[in-house]
Amino acid sequence: MSSQAAHATLLIPGPIEFHDDVLNSMAHHSESHVGAAFVNVFGETLSMLRKLFIATAPTDQPLVVSGSGTLGWDFVAANLIKPGEDALVLHTGYFADSFADCISTYGGVPTQLKAPVGSRPSIPEIKAALQEKNYKVITITHVDTSTGVLSDIQAIAAAVKEVSPSTLVVVDGVCSVGCEEIQFTNWGIDVVLTASQKAIGVPAGLCIMMMSGRAMDAFNNRGVAPGSYFASFKNWIPIMQNYEAKKPSYFATPSPQLIRALHTSLSQFTNDMEGRFKQHKKVSVEVVKARIEAMGLKQLASEPEARANGMTAIYLPEGITAAELLPKLLAKGVIFAGGLHRECAPKYFRFGHMGVSVTDGGLGHIEKALNALEESIKECKKN
Amino acid sequence: MSSQAAHATLLIPGPIEFHDDVLNSMAHHSESHVGAAFVNVFGETLSMLRKLFIATAPTDQPLVVSGSGTLGWDFVAANLIKPGEDALVLHTGYFADSFADCISTYGGVPTQLKAPVGSRPSIPEIKAALQEKNYKVITITHVDTSTGVLSDIQAIAAAVKEVSPSTLVVVDGVCSVGCEEIQFTNWGIDVVLTASQKAIGVPAGLCIMMMSGRAMDAFNNRGVAPGSYFASFKNWIPIMQNYEAKKPSYFATPSPQLIRALHTSLSQFTNDMEGRFKQHKKVSVEVVKARIEAMGLKQLASEPEARANGMTAIYLPEGITAAELLPKLLAKGVIFAGGLHRECAPKYFRFGHMGVSVTDGGLGHIEKALNALEESIKECKKN
Repeated sequence: MSSQAAHATLLIPGPIEFHDDVLNSMAHHSESHVGAAFVNVFGETLSMLRKLFIATAPTDQPLVVSGSGTLGWDFVAANLIKPGEDALVLHTGYFADSFADCISTYGGVPTQLKAPVGSRPSIPEIKAALQEKNYKVITITHVDTSTGVLSDIQAIAAAVKEVSPSTLVVVDGVCSVGCEEIQFTNWGIDVVLTASQKAIGVPAGLCIMMMSGRAMDAFNNRGVAPGSYFASFKNWIPIMQNYEAKKPSYFATPSPQLIRALHTSLSQFTNDMEGRFKQHKKVSVEVVKARIEAMGLKQLASEPEARANGMTAIYLPEGITAAELLPKLLAKGVIFAGGLHRECAPKYFRFGHMGVSVTDGGLGHIEKALNALEESIKECKKN
Repeated sequence: MSSQAAHATLLIPGPIEFHDDVLNSMAHHSESHVGAAFVNVFGETLSMLRKLFIATAPTDQPLVVSGSGTLGWDFVAANLIKPGEDALVLHTGYFADSFADCISTYGGVPTQLKAPVGSRPSIPEIKAALQEKNYKVITITHVDTSTGVLSDIQAIAAAVKEVSPSTLVVVDGVCSVGCEEIQFTNWGIDVVLTASQKAIGVPAGLCIMMMSGRAMDAFNNRGVAPGSYFASFKNWIPIMQNYEAKKPSYFATPSPQLIRALHTSLSQFTNDMEGRFKQHKKVSVEVVKARIEAMGLKQLASEPEARANGMTAIYLPEGITAAELLPKLLAKGVIFAGGLHRECAPKYFRFGHMGVSVTDGGLGHIEKALNALEESIKECKKN
């Protein structure tokens, strides 16, 4: 496919490099959004999301809507939190602030539990916070794309069950779904929201979610209308249920090309999610982070167990700026991202290692990037 | 391009058939949403939208966000109508009911001015309605996809200027932008919202809008926060202004592939919008509707001047159902859509004639469809 030809390797924390078959699906000829062929593909896609999230309860509800991960915040805030209800927002970087803003927009009352940059709130801190108010939801950024901090959502979900069992556990999995272990049902998670362009390996443009039966009950019993029209479970859930039952249905026009691309990508890997998680962890710990440490570079995420497996946020060596380093990397055919966290953006850069760049070792993306990084730093030091 | 190979011709009122170059852009290799190449393409795309809408005032504001046309309703309802403010919703089919629902969701108060199926409110009726309340906005479905009724937005905008000049003129152009004449600035329109998959000729997945300076002033002076987070001008307008100035900017990740496809399509036709409008009208009136009348078929849109130029809603001949007719068309390689309007869905079908199927006569889509229709009806009558 010519459009995929020679280009610098994109190793930012999303969008990631896509498989050729996924990009071919993006160019699928036009088809009706209510025609049998597409309805079948969309239905199968929704069913494969159950495997992606390891969501095994029949009451779990998948959802895919044109938009982005951010739209998932609106779905949560407009459907699951009634005006005046409290939300505990765990803060591990940039994205918790934005999720809190979104909750406020729809009348929810966010309380942020913050940790210093590179760290995460501890389980005792979370338990203590949960005891202070009757929280309708707790939100956790599984991997904060601005810091590369990984939250232990299994332990947090267990703590919530212990201290405040009625609180819904909401996971922002934009930078984790498809590369970090998530056992939706086993761990008792109520919502995971994510986007297509990270470890799921599909171009940006889709908001992807899974809700538990408990979350759907909370919605169905809320008694007031959702605060959003486009991000309304009332408008979309019947459509999702119809598509999964292979029945045409219409609220707003879905994107057949993006859904086909999602179908292609999920078909490639959802039969072995555990293998995929292991592979991302192995490459992250044994290759990327080991080599970065060997180069003497420090990571934003301080504790090893709080480090994401699909990205690494790395402090710049002293005396070197991102404006010097990133163009040297680009000259070697590698694209990394700059810093994003308000408190320290100019001091670090980010390396995304998700999807085909990790699972298809034959591409050589990770080795190429690490070699380019090592050389580029040497070049910067010489100047 | 193999994925575009042999397939039935899609002639529904959106999604439409896409140009090969547009589909190739959908398969563009992955790139950073804040990288120079993409920022440049997005910036040019926003500037080309000014040509698409014939929006010539520097204060006009284009916007493109992942979503669908429906999301445009949320943008209007959550940013331009404050809770408690009145909206006059002109009803020419299915979509006005939904737009009214959306307005209510954000606290606006919609008043619908309805016309019988196949008709549209008259200018005197609209003037009379405007005098009854202080309407913040009037909404007009330019072409209602459920009925094929065309509204005269130029005449309505003039009536609004005469009777209620402070009322913002909001056009739902989902089924009109790119095929029906719109002179945004000359006609004094304040908002047009649309989607990518109809006459703009790009796969579904984008909400596309143009706002006047007057609309932006109304937003900037509203004094209360927008009612939506994802559909918030506050969050998106600075991003759009940065991209158009070719500066990277981030609120939520845009879809580089869809934006590139939009860039490709707009590059193909926005230098001659008037020619494009004329071509769609000529094919609609002189070819499609003339032949349909010659077949003795009746249209939902009763007055000739209220008939859309990008689609035709056609009553089924007596004794023939859509369930009989549509499969016969499919067997001849043509896909039409069934009826959609709640009051009469089983009684009619819809033929979309927009984009390359109209502008590239060499494809032979329109002739093929009309011949297939004539033959299929004959076959149905024989049975």
